[in-house]
Amino acid sequence: MSQKTPSKSEYFRQIRDALSGPTREEAHALSKQKPYKNEARLKSDVAEIGQSSRRNFLTAAAAAAGGVLAAGTVGVKKAKAEKLEIPEWSKSMGRPIEPRVYGMPSRYEKHVTRNRTDVLVNKQNFSDWSMTPLQHQEGIITPNGLIYERHHAGIADIDPDKHRLVVHGMVKRPMVYTMDGITRYPSISKFYFMECSGNGLTDWLKAKSTTVQQTHGLLSCSQWTGIPVSWLLDEAGVDSKAKWVLFEGADGSAHARSIPIDMAMGDAMLVYGAGGEMLRPENGYPLRLFIPGWEGNVCVKWLRRIKVSDKPWHLRSETARYTDPMPDGKWRQFSMTMECKSVITKPSGGMQLNGPGLYEIQGFAWSGNGTITAVDVTTDGGKTWRTADLEEPVLDRCLTRFRYRWNWDGGPARIASRAVDNTGYVQPTIEDLTKPRLIAGFVQHHNGIFPWNVSQKGEVVNGLG
Amino acid sequence: MSQKTPSKSEYFRQIRDALSGPTREEAHALSKQKPYKNEARLKSDVAEIGQSSRRNFLTAAAAAAGGVLAAGTVGVKKAKAEKLEIPEWSKSMGRPIEPRVYGMPSRYEKHVTRNRTDVLVNKQNFSDWSMTPLQHQEGIITPNGLIYERHHAGIADIDPDKHRLVVHGMVKRPMVYTMDGITRYPSISKFYFMECSGNGLTDWLKAKSTTVQQTHGLLSCSQWTGIPVSWLLDEAGVDSKAKWVLFEGADGSAHARSIPIDMAMGDAMLVYGAGGEMLRPENGYPLRLFIPGWEGNVCVKWLRRIKVSDKPWHLRSETARYTDPMPDGKWRQFSMTMECKSVITKPSGGMQLNGPGLYEIQGFAWSGNGTITAVDVTTDGGKTWRTADLEEPVLDRCLTRFRYRWNWDGGPARIASRAVDNTGYVQPTIEDLTKPRLIAGFVQHHNGIFPWNVSQKGEVVNGLG
Repeated sequence: MSQKTPSKSEYFRQIRDALSGPTREEAHALSKQKPYKNEARLKSDVAEIGQSSRRNFLTAAAAAAGGVLAAGTVGVKKAKAEKLEIPEWSKSMGRPIEPRVYGMPSRYEKHVTRNRTDVLVNKQNFSDWSMTPLQHQEGIITPNGLIYERHHAGIADIDPDKHRLVVHGMVKRPMVYTMDGITRYPSISKFYFMECSGNGLTDWLKAKSTTVQQTHGLLSCSQWTGIPVSWLLDEAGVDSKAKWVLFEGADGSAHARSIPIDMAMGDAMLVYGAGGEMLRPENGYPLRLFIPGWEGNVCVKWLRRIKVSDKPWHLRSETARYTDPMPDGKWRQFSMTMECKSVITKPSGGMQLNGPGLYEIQGFAWSGNGTITAVDVTTDGGKTWRTADLEEPVLDRCLTRFRYRWNWDGGPARIASRAVDNTGYVQPTIEDLTKPRLIAGFVQHHNGIFPWNVSQKGEVVNGLG
Repeated sequence: MSQKTPSKSEYFRQIRDALSGPTREEAHALSKQKPYKNEARLKSDVAEIGQSSRRNFLTAAAAAAGGVLAAGTVGVKKAKAEKLEIPEWSKSMGRPIEPRVYGMPSRYEKHVTRNRTDVLVNKQNFSDWSMTPLQHQEGIITPNGLIYERHHAGIADIDPDKHRLVVHGMVKRPMVYTMDGITRYPSISKFYFMECSGNGLTDWLKAKSTTVQQTHGLLSCSQWTGIPVSWLLDEAGVDSKAKWVLFEGADGSAHARSIPIDMAMGDAMLVYGAGGEMLRPENGYPLRLFIPGWEGNVCVKWLRRIKVSDKPWHLRSETARYTDPMPDGKWRQFSMTMECKSVITKPSGGMQLNGPGLYEIQGFAWSGNGTITAVDVTTDGGKTWRTADLEEPVLDRCLTRFRYRWNWDGGPARIASRAVDNTGYVQPTIEDLTKPRLIAGFVQHHNGIFPWNVSQKGEVVNGLG
């Protein structure tokens, strides 16, 4: 491939042409997405955090290297940072590309995995769960390999070509769908969080969990792709007397739930994709129900059957499980909405602060009832609360990132967050929650405010108990 | 764990309480996110596509199964679809959860991988690329294991604890940063596409690529997490005469680019996270430059050095590579914006339509200059164009999904898409593009309209050539 090398003046003419056109300037003007709502505060935070964390930087080496480098020529070879040690990876060829590969994280990130509970040890691991490492999650999207799991009979290994979805019961035209049929419909893709109703159950009374993965890791967020359930129900023709719809899984447990018809005909989706690809086996491949904002166990995985009826089924998962004990000795059924909640993920249990100074407190807030409108943060155990910044995009029933600037004075501290959604609902304290609820056994729907304690040594530990 | 079983009337009281409260009704009212802009059209599409694709469904089996099932009791065991074959995965326990696992796709999805080019075969695979399987991508987020690759000396394997970033040149205070220092700053997370300047180069003249992975797969989209470059440049103190900034990688090729100071101080980010976790090694772990809307090769991976100057460096990647030949024999340098473009991903090369009827045409549109405002679709080779629907969220410099209802009459067809961005720029035809550009050798910045041909048999093939 030949080319003419332009003259120096030609270079500069071309550079001017390439750089001064309206296209790029317009691009700058168009950059309206603000990373945080309070840009001015962000700017001052950055300057101060930079200053306070500079002790971590190799300023001596920098000055030396910089001195040499500033005097270097424009040639890239000559301008290498010679006074800094040149690592092996800069002096050798890296790993070549192999054909047909699905990539994996760096070997230096092997500690970032899903994990089973470390508080409640099941005797078998078929009816089990694993949790998302929220302390390592950047942004709002949970990587597909880290979306939390909850199974009642292990992970089904389903051949999509042989999978069938039956729609029947109080309908005019019972139907059986293949995956080819379902994926031929127009698809929709929406960002939503998903949370297990039991998220936090291991910490309500025992406070043994050490990290946010173990206290809040039955929580993930993805972009879910599929079709509204209503499209298939419309096609089958729902009887006007129908009130409830059964959704049943094809796994060995035949896990199933009764869903009110208004939700089945509303936002409920039949999902086959998550995070840009087909569902993972542990998340219901090839098809699951997804009800935005409702507890994970109603989002029935490996979905094989939809049955329409005029009453609920009162299945085992609606009587023995997934119910809430009340002070009068009764158990509340069908409480499926995951209410407004938040948690600080950084700093969180197991982390270590390196001396007094400015730190950014980060975390997630979410609500099954709508969008997050505010998050407050306390650093003195709830005596005073201040407003955190929310990162765009703030989406309906989706994880929202918040951040708050904290100037740690080096003394013991107790940090927590409190979220508010657009219904006006405020995340309750644990004391508030125990008033209408009986605390016994496994506790579902724990959306109480959760504290981390910071010691004088900078150690961050579970603040409950 | 004991529980009292409530009486039947108590059941119904509890159900009423749980289902009739303001909380859930508000949740419904709050569901303002529309999947597509034109809801009315979507509804009619669904009905018609359902009808036309019903031939794929097992209606005979459905009627039989439905008949039996409708007569069944409410007990879930009895109500199983007995007339349908019960697969092995419904009769056995699935795979149990192992501790500390990073999940992988189903074994039935092994065909969904990145892949090297099948047109230009490199003699070695160190300076190489692999492409994203866009034909399989659901939603706008590319899974982390499928983000496209481009390397000049293979994939560097960097220990983040030993990695250093130097900032020097025309600055007041040269600095060296550790990864701990960089990640202590407040972080921002933004959704952006990333595209190689050479995306499509194999198809401009040769038309041998068979799938959209091979024609357009040097394109991915993620939520990128990091800090603005400007924060570190502000800390170093940029000289008022500075005009250009060098960004250099720590890989064996020391790949580097000169970036205008206004972009370095603008939207440019130092990125360490993508898609919810730390960058993958092949995408620059532990640190890369990311310039939204600009060609991928300026988003220097494995970033080790930032040098400020008053002129560009004219590196090999700015003279021998990543330049555009012009009709006058000169080569255009520093043309880094990826202009407005789109492509149909479904149906696309290698797919097969199953007879005449309604099909949803889906694809991606994107622009390095802003947001997508419209996508037109033709099914008659460009004679007529009709407006497609855009799926929310439509974000600045991000992939946008479009869809269009197509009633295929079973005859030969030529389908293509044409995107428009909010600067008013319209994606050009290939003929339009060749007027100001010389077509020779590797062609960069190919954003021409790309057609697929559909045969009478329903085969979809590359429409170029």
